[in-house]
Amino acid sequence: MGHGVVGGGVTEILLKHADQIAKKVNEEVYIKKVLDLREFPDSPIADRFTKDFNDIISDDEISVVVEVMGGLNPAYSFVKQCLEKGKSVVTSNKELVAAKGAELLAIAKAKNVNFLFEASVGGAIPIIRPLHQCLAANEIEKINGILNGTTNFILNKMINDNMSFEDALALAQEKGYAERNPAADIEGHDACRKICILAALVYGTHVYPESVHTEGITKVTLKDVEYAKAWGGAVKLIASARKNGSSVEIITAPMFVSGDCQLSNVDGVYNELLVRGDSSGTIGFYGRGAGKLPTASAVVADVMDCVLHKDVRRDIMWEDGTGANVLPYESYVNAMYVLCGADDAAAALAKADEIFGKCEKIEKDDSESGELAFITPELAYSEFTARCAEFGKAADVKATMRVAKI
Amino acid sequence: MGHGVVGGGVTEILLKHADQIAKKVNEEVYIKKVLDLREFPDSPIADRFTKDFNDIISDDEISVVVEVMGGLNPAYSFVKQCLEKGKSVVTSNKELVAAKGAELLAIAKAKNVNFLFEASVGGAIPIIRPLHQCLAANEIEKINGILNGTTNFILNKMINDNMSFEDALALAQEKGYAERNPAADIEGHDACRKICILAALVYGTHVYPESVHTEGITKVTLKDVEYAKAWGGAVKLIASARKNGSSVEIITAPMFVSGDCQLSNVDGVYNELLVRGDSSGTIGFYGRGAGKLPTASAVVADVMDCVLHKDVRRDIMWEDGTGANVLPYESYVNAMYVLCGADDAAAALAKADEIFGKCEKIEKDDSESGELAFITPELAYSEFTARCAEFGKAADVKATMRVAKI
Repeated sequence: MGHGVVGGGVTEILLKHADQIAKKVNEEVYIKKVLDLREFPDSPIADRFTKDFNDIISDDEISVVVEVMGGLNPAYSFVKQCLEKGKSVVTSNKELVAAKGAELLAIAKAKNVNFLFEASVGGAIPIIRPLHQCLAANEIEKINGILNGTTNFILNKMINDNMSFEDALALAQEKGYAERNPAADIEGHDACRKICILAALVYGTHVYPESVHTEGITKVTLKDVEYAKAWGGAVKLIASARKNGSSVEIITAPMFVSGDCQLSNVDGVYNELLVRGDSSGTIGFYGRGAGKLPTASAVVADVMDCVLHKDVRRDIMWEDGTGANVLPYESYVNAMYVLCGADDAAAALAKADEIFGKCEKIEKDDSESGELAFITPELAYSEFTARCAEFGKAADVKATMRVAKI
Repeated sequence: MGHGVVGGGVTEILLKHADQIAKKVNEEVYIKKVLDLREFPDSPIADRFTKDFNDIISDDEISVVVEVMGGLNPAYSFVKQCLEKGKSVVTSNKELVAAKGAELLAIAKAKNVNFLFEASVGGAIPIIRPLHQCLAANEIEKINGILNGTTNFILNKMINDNMSFEDALALAQEKGYAERNPAADIEGHDACRKICILAALVYGTHVYPESVHTEGITKVTLKDVEYAKAWGGAVKLIASARKNGSSVEIITAPMFVSGDCQLSNVDGVYNELLVRGDSSGTIGFYGRGAGKLPTASAVVADVMDCVLHKDVRRDIMWEDGTGANVLPYESYVNAMYVLCGADDAAAALAKADEIFGKCEKIEKDDSESGELAFITPELAYSEFTARCAEFGKAADVKATMRVAKI
């Protein structure tokens, strides 16, 4: 269902690797129907297109349905009907999984079919299955990742080429990395959906994106990026979930990332996820988080898994959530970067020390006079904002940003 | 079977996370017997130790056997008997899998049980299952990795702290990263076994370590390491397998790795594997490649998989191999690093250009006079050695090393 970029890639891989795939799953994987409202007269399977969902839902020969339409509607309704009809569903649609995952997994369980979504997080990077299976003997302490390639590309252009946010966004659009309406990427919603899916998978309770404090990168300035570099790190859009007792701290926001952390070096449109288990230590997963063939290859692998496990459900499952297990973001503890205007930088730093506790001044060769940047000690965010208001009486606070705890 | 470092970790995790594990696999995972010739009177399961393998093989209640004894004998005989008796086996023993994988997988298939070995490559890092399942829709073009943490620790001490190979090895032994007899690590055999397992998994034919050209790091000097740094990269022990038609190029050797490649930055005892699929692009896996709990957590995850899939075999399988699909290493094409003594460096470089084709001189601030280091164009190894012999008439060749193609 859906013959856009990813759908076209799925078709391409299924046709190109038909023999290899058949050998691996012990039967032919045949594309019976493709649902799309558009016409594709030049497709090698042009005769199998339909505009009518009923052609799919009512066809008992179709045992696995791929949903790569994106968006919540009509994907949600279609997927739900397919599962209820006893068809396994594979999707790359993070919006759908983040909004309806618990419900759809419950239907899949009741019908003893699979609902798989490896491609919804990290494109081609194996994440869902390794987290679920390979790290199953671990208690997962925290997950931190760069889960949106578009924003990482933009930030890297700012970091490496001194490009403004606006210019870097325009370049990303020109290269096809960013949509014409880039809000889902640059406002952080895409990364937020992905960390919600991972948190649900790992901690067992659905986390709805609305419960998660989400900041995009639109307010990140070249000055912030320069100070992060001078500090020895980089500004990255970090999606983070960590266990805190029986609750979860979860947030998506641009953060200062230390230079000795692998996430500070992730290039271009790549994604990287770091997972810390109590036994495994930190494990990293790296690769292309989006794109036609990378995403499609993850979809096809899930299809193959469905075919191989027709009568044995994958036991991926989580409970529905109310947001009650999500701690309020004001309580999350981070060191903070503060940029301020101050005629007397030394006096302002002394004031900062007094208010926040001993701060670390960031030395930058070409600092403008009348400007001061520093890192505070670790503080709960509510405490930080209160003290920052106090500090704002003595200096002109221009920007603040969290320092990632990875 | 085996209550050494990893075996102790397996027990620890199974006891510590008993409830969580039971919940995930829908039944209790109970340690019925532990085989070890030593006594463990203080173990919480001291009453379950046995010195007699027959207590395990003849106990029909034991459905999954963990082999973490290491070494080929008696592990091979014990594992074979367990599989033939219809018990699933989980192992962390790379020597066993590299030497007997095809045979043991065939027995497991015939008996419809599982033979799993996620922990044999990369410790806690999920590699086997992601390669097999998540990247199943890809044709894997190449695999390159740092698969031995001990040698990576030693090389990094040479790189970062200017320590000699001997001192770095002594430090690794002091820290418990290297065995008292470190040959398997420093001679490259451990990394070679792991790349053999991955090549078999990905290309479908067993590759015996004896078929693979393997060089360790014992001949790497501080001077090589410094020239690699001056060139903009690092010396790393690289295990590499790549598809070439229906054959495989496979090698384990120290190589110059370019600074913009993720493998050049892998720290300490960490491992990293880069896999390139035709659709996925390059995917990276990173983490602790050894150690008690990391390795044990991978073993326990495999045990859980066996319990969950009692009647459904994982379809991991490869054919036995004769080495016929392994191309001779003399034909592998690499650029080469050459270090030589030369009274007239300019003349020697001109000679090198003449013999190898246009070479790239490595500029190093503190180069000794009478010394020259350069990188040749890409050449088949047999061609390189022939031309190097010719070049040796004009200069005193002190060291050569491959430049990794990743």
